Amino acid sequence: MEPIVRTALLEDIGHGGDLTTDAIVPANKRIIGHIVARKTGVIAGVEAARVTFGLLDPNATITIKKDDGDKVEPQDIVLTIECAARALLTGERTALNVICRLSGIASATRTLVDLVQPYRAAVVCTRKTTPGLRVLEKYAVRCGGGSNHRFGLDDAVLIKDNHLALAQSVELAVRAVRERVGHMVKIEIEVDTLDQLEEALATPVDAVLLDNMTPEQLRAAVARVNGRVITEASGTITPERVADVASSGVDLISSGWITHSAPALDLGLDVEV
Amino acid sequence: MEPIVRTALLEDIGHGGDLTTDAIVPANKRIIGHIVARKTGVIAGVEAARVTFGLLDPNATITIKKDDGDKVEPQDIVLTIECAARALLTGERTALNVICRLSGIASATRTLVDLVQPYRAAVVCTRKTTPGLRVLEKYAVRCGGGSNHRFGLDDAVLIKDNHLALAQSVELAVRAVRERVGHMVKIEIEVDTLDQLEEALATPVDAVLLDNMTPEQLRAAVARVNGRVITEASGTITPERVADVASSGVDLISSGWITHSAPALDLGLDVEV
Amino acid sequence: MEPIVRTALLEDIGHGGDLTTDAIVPANKRIIGHIVARKTGVIAGVEAARVTFGLLDPNATITIKKDDGDKVEPQDIVLTIECAARALLTGERTALNVICRLSGIASATRTLVDLVQPYRAAVVCTRKTTPGLRVLEKYAVRCGGGSNHRFGLDDAVLIKDNHLALAQSVELAVRAVRERVGHMVKIEIEVDTLDQLEEALATPVDAVLLDNMTPEQLRAAVARVNGRVITEASGTITPERVADVASSGVDLISSGWITHSAPALDLGLDVEV
Amino acid sequence: MEPIVRTALLEDIGHGGDLTTDAIVPANKRIIGHIVARKTGVIAGVEAARVTFGLLDPNATITIKKDDGDKVEPQDIVLTIECAARALLTGERTALNVICRLSGIASATRTLVDLVQPYRAAVVCTRKTTPGLRVLEKYAVRCGGGSNHRFGLDDAVLIKDNHLALAQSVELAVRAVRERVGHMVKIEIEVDTLDQLEEALATPVDAVLLDNMTPEQLRAAVARVNGRVITEASGTITPERVADVASSGVDLISSGWITHSAPALDLGLDVEV
Amino acid sequence: MEPIVRTALLEDIGHGGDLTTDAIVPANKRIIGHIVARKTGVIAGVEAARVTFGLLDPNATITIKKDDGDKVEPQDIVLTIECAARALLTGERTALNVICRLSGIASATRTLVDLVQPYRAAVVCTRKTTPGLRVLEKYAVRCGGGSNHRFGLDDAVLIKDNHLALAQSVELAVRAVRERVGHMVKIEIEVDTLDQLEEALATPVDAVLLDNMTPEQLRAAVARVNGRVITEASGTITPERVADVASSGVDLISSGWITHSAPALDLGLDVEV
Amino acid sequence: MEPIVRTALLEDIGHGGDLTTDAIVPANKRIIGHIVARKTGVIAGVEAARVTFGLLDPNATITIKKDDGDKVEPQDIVLTIECAARALLTGERTALNVICRLSGIASATRTLVDLVQPYRAAVVCTRKTTPGLRVLEKYAVRCGGGSNHRFGLDDAVLIKDNHLALAQSVELAVRAVRERVGHMVKIEIEVDTLDQLEEALATPVDAVLLDNMTPEQLRAAVARVNGRVITEASGTITPERVADVASSGVDLISSGWITHSAPALDLGLDVEV
Repeated sequence: MEPIVRTALLEDIGHGGDLTTDAIVPANKRIIGHIVARKTGVIAGVEAARVTFGLLDPNATITIKKDDGDKVEPQDIVLTIECAARALLTGERTALNVICRLSGIASATRTLVDLVQPYRAAVVCTRKTTPGLRVLEKYAVRCGGGSNHRFGLDDAVLIKDNHLALAQSVELAVRAVRERVGHMVKIEIEVDTLDQLEEALATPVDAVLLDNMTPEQLRAAVARVNGRVITEASGTITPERVADVASSGVDLISSGWITHSAPALDLGLDVEV
Repeated sequence: MEPIVRTALLEDIGHGGDLTTDAIVPANKRIIGHIVARKTGVIAGVEAARVTFGLLDPNATITIKKDDGDKVEPQDIVLTIECAARALLTGERTALNVICRLSGIASATRTLVDLVQPYRAAVVCTRKTTPGLRVLEKYAVRCGGGSNHRFGLDDAVLIKDNHLALAQSVELAVRAVRERVGHMVKIEIEVDTLDQLEEALATPVDAVLLDNMTPEQLRAAVARVNGRVITEASGTITPERVADVASSGVDLISSGWITHSAPALDLGLDVEV
Repeated sequence: MEPIVRTALLEDIGHGGDLTTDAIVPANKRIIGHIVARKTGVIAGVEAARVTFGLLDPNATITIKKDDGDKVEPQDIVLTIECAARALLTGERTALNVICRLSGIASATRTLVDLVQPYRAAVVCTRKTTPGLRVLEKYAVRCGGGSNHRFGLDDAVLIKDNHLALAQSVELAVRAVRERVGHMVKIEIEVDTLDQLEEALATPVDAVLLDNMTPEQLRAAVARVNGRVITEASGTITPERVADVASSGVDLISSGWITHSAPALDLGLDVEV
Repeated sequence: MEPIVRTALLEDIGHGGDLTTDAIVPANKRIIGHIVARKTGVIAGVEAARVTFGLLDPNATITIKKDDGDKVEPQDIVLTIECAARALLTGERTALNVICRLSGIASATRTLVDLVQPYRAAVVCTRKTTPGLRVLEKYAVRCGGGSNHRFGLDDAVLIKDNHLALAQSVELAVRAVRERVGHMVKIEIEVDTLDQLEEALATPVDAVLLDNMTPEQLRAAVARVNGRVITEASGTITPERVADVASSGVDLISSGWITHSAPALDLGLDVEV
Repeated sequence: MEPIVRTALLEDIGHGGDLTTDAIVPANKRIIGHIVARKTGVIAGVEAARVTFGLLDPNATITIKKDDGDKVEPQDIVLTIECAARALLTGERTALNVICRLSGIASATRTLVDLVQPYRAAVVCTRKTTPGLRVLEKYAVRCGGGSNHRFGLDDAVLIKDNHLALAQSVELAVRAVRERVGHMVKIEIEVDTLDQLEEALATPVDAVLLDNMTPEQLRAAVARVNGRVITEASGTITPERVADVASSGVDLISSGWITHSAPALDLGLDVEV
Repeated sequence: MEPIVRTALLEDIGHGGDLTTDAIVPANKRIIGHIVARKTGVIAGVEAARVTFGLLDPNATITIKKDDGDKVEPQDIVLTIECAARALLTGERTALNVICRLSGIASATRTLVDLVQPYRAAVVCTRKTTPGLRVLEKYAVRCGGGSNHRFGLDDAVLIKDNHLALAQSVELAVRAVRERVGHMVKIEIEVDTLDQLEEALATPVDAVLLDNMTPEQLRAAVARVNGRVITEASGTITPERVADVASSGVDLISSGWITHSAPALDLGLDVEV
């Protein structure tokens, strides 16, 4: 969190500092501010406030009222800051930019998680994240009740359609990977049809990614797998479709929407005067 | 663009590299891929493809079919890549993550710009941007036909309500700023009511930010200002409200929504096999 | 200030540390030192002492006797340091290198400011600064009573003779810029003759840079402008010429000499034994 | 040189780029410019032009007319640049800031070197350099005909008065250092009087720094040393005093003035239209 | 590889450059050199030569005679360099430092791999690597015919004795981990006795680490596991003991010795004069 | 030390953190651990423990029982840590990796130092160090009773056989260097035969490196030099040969083995439960 907040502060403060605040607000004036929800959602990233205001004023005091993962309603106070007035005004936008974005992701995730709650499926994120923010966004997904897929290209294997198009066969692709990677690395393979599923199940994979299948196809795939490997559904997972997909009995549903298109949660800063 | 793409690639490739691709795809295999629109929108950030694939394969050739700012329809080819197959598969997600996000911002901006087209108002962005991506996001706004507000806290003055709450008077606040900043720096001041507007107009400011006013209040404010300073409207600017706001005759309309909540534009990579 | 001091310390201490001090001075020995003026001038950059000795000894105590902007005479104590003897001897050169340079700039600026005091002109700096030190040097100019021009190429527009040589006309150059930059950015244009001044005044610029004009030409230009835009004089501004230039009635006088050629102010470190 | 130029360019171009040039000058326009001397002096740092314009335009061609160390007269062309017009205008200030400063140091050094030319003394620099630029400034001293003292605190030992004040005796100080440092490290010791010189000569030092001595004292010291160790004179070395000091027969004369207070050499950029 | 070589070069060249070579060797002199084996072993890291000499001379040509993973005998030429003589002499030590170390690891690994060749066990490395060089050292293990364990603490779970000492039970520890990590992460657990093995097998782990067991204990453990999970032996694995351990039938043998204590392979640079 | 430990921690913790520890160990659990010797040797680098655990838990308390340079026997406690249990388990490997490696170097150095104890020779290290760790490894050599040769290519001159092959004569090589470097830089020259020694002694060098000579040749060389310059022996210096070499009366013996091939000292972490 700290390098990201530091980057954002440098980006905002630039070379010349906060021209407005430095000219108008006395250096020794202290103040109390509240970050307040303006909409309903789930909070993530309150640590950003501690880091932002702590960098600008080592004597800042932050009191957390809503922890990451908590639900908020409009008017709920998320946290309270007591610090130098200059620090509060200069850091306001940076802290809010981080918390609003992460809370947006947590809120979108929670929406999906609530919708699939009757079923066994877990909601997982993808690698469709913002450059530089992946760690935080994957954390926000967990705050919303979701689970994480692999972090990047190097901690697990996912053989996708384009890989298979370049391999001689499913069997040879899986074997090539198995020889290259260590014994602690799992292998997942994308399948688009039930025929491909058969091919995949003939190899020692740990999971299958059932991409862009209808709920009926998913149901058939889950029956065919019968618990031998992990099943994951993907492809345009939105609030409208997610319960249908979950009803197929898959273990996991992965969604890019929760990270790449979640609207920011509306939070504001109210100052006590 | 390069440091951002580099960060994203490192984040994705990690320490171990692309386990899947390196095991399956031969190092000397070359390939052709197309980044293709799946939805209607405006393109921004095609340079990300050049940087991503160029970093992974210095011999990559990128042919741009749609320049930044161009409109796309589903199936339109945005650009074509000829490079090592490994580079294409390893860099796909990084390049798309950047272009989809920036094109989402350009598309959202264009939506507002088209809606206010009958009026004189320009659409401008705010500082509600993603940590580390402000330069690119402000550029994407321009690709969508919008204009930029100040880059950060140090290149222009914007006196907001919280500043005024901590100053003795509007007049003293403006004077304090005028003394501190160089002669090339402009001053804008936020006003929430017509009374505050009167106070502001009595000082040497360059622009007024009319925050959260109704179209009627805006109309009255514009009449009162009568061209003496720049007028800017802000506050929950959405596609539904923006034309009403523009009809008041303000010079500028600023929107946080176009940067903090624009959904990603759906683009994909099709490989020629 | 901190990254600059850190760079300077690393540059000086290198890989092996302060061979002399580490061998001779016991680690637990504490000491008191005074930074003392050896010449008359204006102080800038005392923060460098706090940063330097604080990095080398977290328990260092710095007592500021002369604030940035204060005048000093020979023998005046600028500040007093109580810290580990090793920290004092190792950091001495780094702290002095920064303070002497910045105080040199403040002193040179104050010389010009005092000379133009009978007139309305403010003294402003240019972009002729030391690589990596621009923020500090522009701050030192303010300590000497000067004001700042734009920080860099990106926060204001200055159309110079070479730009005009490449444009079709003054009018088209100004229009091109006005369309490209946001509403908070000011535009200044360089004019070398009264004819060019006429052309410039026909466009919506905010300021004119009257370059290398004689006091008589400047006087005519100021009369012609008559307060409609800001007037700035530049070109070999030295202590000898500055009052003449100021007497023309220009608003601003910009000088590269105060940053690129100001001699360091002579300060030394006296140790209490 | 490259990291320093890169830092300077980033400092100047900021987040938004060169607003003026980008708006007015077409991207595909190419141009020829000459860096030209406006005063007499010695050139140092022409490499800065190659790096600056090469970073902004990989196709830039630089033709060096005056190498580092060459003397120039007013109107002499130092080097010629053929590159994109945008690159030339955007990089002009950065390249000149570096070359003017380094040439100023080379010119000041050459002034001293010429003045001591009748004597055996070499002119050497000190650690009184600009933060971050020490390597380049020490190089500029060599361009001016000077020689370098130690680079920093870690590559040679210089026992100064403050070290001795904290040691029990000259003998113990030298012995402590000799035990700590490797066999390839030389030891120099500062002496302010002829008595101290006697003490120093009783120890295995490699050089003595004769600080703030009159020419007469220096002459006596040189006679006493009689070639057994290197002799170096220091203390307010200016063009006025340097020949007197050199006449004493010392091996070296060290000057802080050539790095901390040398005025920039006046160079400009002329564009072919 | 590039950041590591760059760091090493900066560490070696320092601020002042290669004093010896720059003074003695003409800048335009070119030369041919050979990196030659002085002992028997396995090569790893030849890329270091390409990076080192390429950074010092963009026109350097490297011809690889022995690829990573190849065996060498004394006098074998590993690779040949044609480049500027200065680049060769300045970069020699940096390139050799990297290649000798990585080849030492590959050679030590190959020694173990050859010894266990009659058995099914693979040789794997641990996290006992050099700070900053883990990626390269794990690669060198693969060059020697070994396989990699997890890269770090974040890409797989290994529950060790100290974790169990802090957990309430094996079952609860495994369950806590399973809930926290994504579905693509494997879990391994350390067991020191056959009783602990029983406990571990009652939980859904993917692998067991049999630590410091005798060959007899290992044989019993392998029989008990009977292929249900992966078995790994560890604890003072040296060339003397490794075949005995492998004869137990374990799947993997992990060794810290191959990374933390492998002696460098002796390679030298011969110059053609 | 801090940047190296920080790099190692980031390398080990990666993006996702310590999955095992974070899932199993409660955040508020505190613990006591001891770093304990498992073999006989000399300790170096205990500071690594302070930095590692201090970065992970600012409230960690480290009690040093064995200082750098102290000898240890199996079971000796080197230091005791009281900190958060998570910090201890997460940082264990990083701290041990540094201390075991540096202690290995100190132990190997001490072995040589003890063997040459009857003679006048000092043991010195070379530039055959690990990329990025040179400062620490040279420090570890001093902990083992050794001394340091030059840090890098820029702080002293060592003219080797390849330099001479490219120079016209020994005399011209030494003269070229003498003119280029400052007066505080020493010059050493490699000689392989007694004839070359004669040539070297005819020039103003400070030291001679007697490379790959037999003890008899060394004895003759020492006699010939007769104290006029420093004598250093090098070439395959191992515990078996070092006393023979030292008996020749050389001043210094340099060994690459103590840094590039010293086995890690076996240390472990015992936790109090």
